Amino acid sequence: MEITLQPIAWVKNSRQHITDDYWGDVVSEIILDERIPANAFDGINGFSHLEIIYYFDRAKEDPIKYLRRPRGNPDFPEVGIFAQRNKDRPNHLGICTVELIWQREGSIGVKFLDAVDGTPILDIKPVYREFSPPTKTKQPDWVSKLMEVYWDKKKE
Amino acid sequence: MEITLQPIAWVKNSRQHITDDYWGDVVSEIILDERIPANAFDGINGFSHLEIIYYFDRAKEDPIKYLRRPRGNPDFPEVGIFAQRNKDRPNHLGICTVELIWQREGSIGVKFLDAVDGTPILDIKPVYREFSPPTKTKQPDWVSKLMEVYWDKKKE
Repeated sequence: MEITLQPIAWVKNSRQHITDDYWGDVVSEIILDERIPANAFDGINGFSHLEIIYYFDRAKEDPIKYLRRPRGNPDFPEVGIFAQRNKDRPNHLGICTVELIWQREGSIGVKFLDAVDGTPILDIKPVYREFSPPTKTKQPDWVSKLMEVYWDKKKE
Repeated sequence: MEITLQPIAWVKNSRQHITDDYWGDVVSEIILDERIPANAFDGINGFSHLEIIYYFDRAKEDPIKYLRRPRGNPDFPEVGIFAQRNKDRPNHLGICTVELIWQREGSIGVKFLDAVDGTPILDIKPVYREFSPPTKTKQPDWVSKLMEVYWDKKKE
């Protein structure tokens, strides 16, 4: 079974190169693809947060490693690709929850999108409180270590 | 630009027909596609919650309405498709945060997956606390009304 998708929007920001960390100061513009009418964003500013599904179009590892240490770090355990969020994964899909900061005709501005400039976006969904994970979730210790400076601002 | 994806797993549950509400008592098995090795799930039980990206393969509305009232309800405002989570959307992608209840060789059991039996799954990501939305999010009043019985158990 093959599923064919087309980008509905594109990322515009200052991040030209793939980097793991320091996404805290990146503001991105999400611009609707020309085939999508601008009214697809009507009412979006009723929400503070959005989920963005995007395509890691620059992830080129082939074949995919189904079992690996996150970031290749020898301090982390070997775990399956569905027990980590590494971009070199089957189907190359990324998800990120972003904060909406402004809305214009055919584009929105967001904070906390961890995608580089030019990334194709496949879907945008508003965060409904009723779909959010509970405040208490369980995760292994390596995750907190891996995420330590992810949302920090870039150092000069 | 066209992006071609293949299912990495499939949903097995008791829900045969598309229904809007009453997902609270559905337990689903997620079975890896035969091309994916079982070790892709190694370590997944270190997490309590997972994000599932799936494909609404039975959503057939054509053309897509980019502006609509959620659920066609006249009490709700007309909003753009990216300001609601309706399944009849460009690319037909669904996301749901589920609770992991068990892990076996090549399959996992989850609660709170709002997808019907046979749905193709495109990705599974563990919930990292550091990616979760804040506890306070803003949403319009119609969302709470729409979600009123979504997670209730089905009435006999």
